[in-house]
Amino acid sequence: MTKALVLFAHGARAASWAAPFERLRDLTAARLPDCAVRLAFLELMEPRLPEAVSSLVAEGVEEVTVVPVFLGQGGHLLRDLPMLADGLRAAHPGLRLNVAGAVGEDPGVLAAMTDYCVRSVAAPE
Amino acid sequence: MTKALVLFAHGARAASWAAPFERLRDLTAARLPDCAVRLAFLELMEPRLPEAVSSLVAEGVEEVTVVPVFLGQGGHLLRDLPMLADGLRAAHPGLRLNVAGAVGEDPGVLAAMTDYCVRSVAAPE
Repeated sequence: MTKALVLFAHGARAASWAAPFERLRDLTAARLPDCAVRLAFLELMEPRLPEAVSSLVAEGVEEVTVVPVFLGQGGHLLRDLPMLADGLRAAHPGLRLNVAGAVGEDPGVLAAMTDYCVRSVAAPE
Repeated sequence: MTKALVLFAHGARAASWAAPFERLRDLTAARLPDCAVRLAFLELMEPRLPEAVSSLVAEGVEEVTVVPVFLGQGGHLLRDLPMLADGLRAAHPGLRLNVAGAVGEDPGVLAAMTDYCVRSVAAPE
């Protein structure tokens, strides 16, 4: 495969935290049979973004799209991710690297979160 | 209003981070005209959860549903939020307090995030 999608998440100490990101990876991979789909983390969990992208390049991937699985655009996306992306472009000059917006900024994701909030009041867990 | 929904988010140093949470609050409030809808934060932003709930109780709210606007269940939801909820129940014995699951665990939200990831590869930004 020459294309890859990297779902970039924060990371946490609790292993349970990664479960929805792993489901997201599996659901996405099922719909993109011609694209490698991987998880990578900013901190606390492995692999970190540079290692994940290096592995993909070693496998022959020529184009990587990074989707930040973050709700808001804080310092991690405003500063840390651009720095990481600059480092990746310098380390892999033949790689085409795209960085998407945060999932939480997508209107479809916002609509689904709104539905969930509305349902939570109607029938709280 | 006797019912309220509190969207509980992490908080960040960058003011821009709160934008999607404010949109989520506004979209949710538009669909729940008989329910007060507020944002509250764990850290770094105001109001914090205890202050938000105290204000609602002072306004006459009798039932509060807290929806954690988090993607994964890490230490903040496994430890911090239950401690905050215990403190709120002790401080407001007449209040009915419900705590929902994290938005990131909802199948509808996961499906919308999957759609976004798939679209990002087809047409990267």
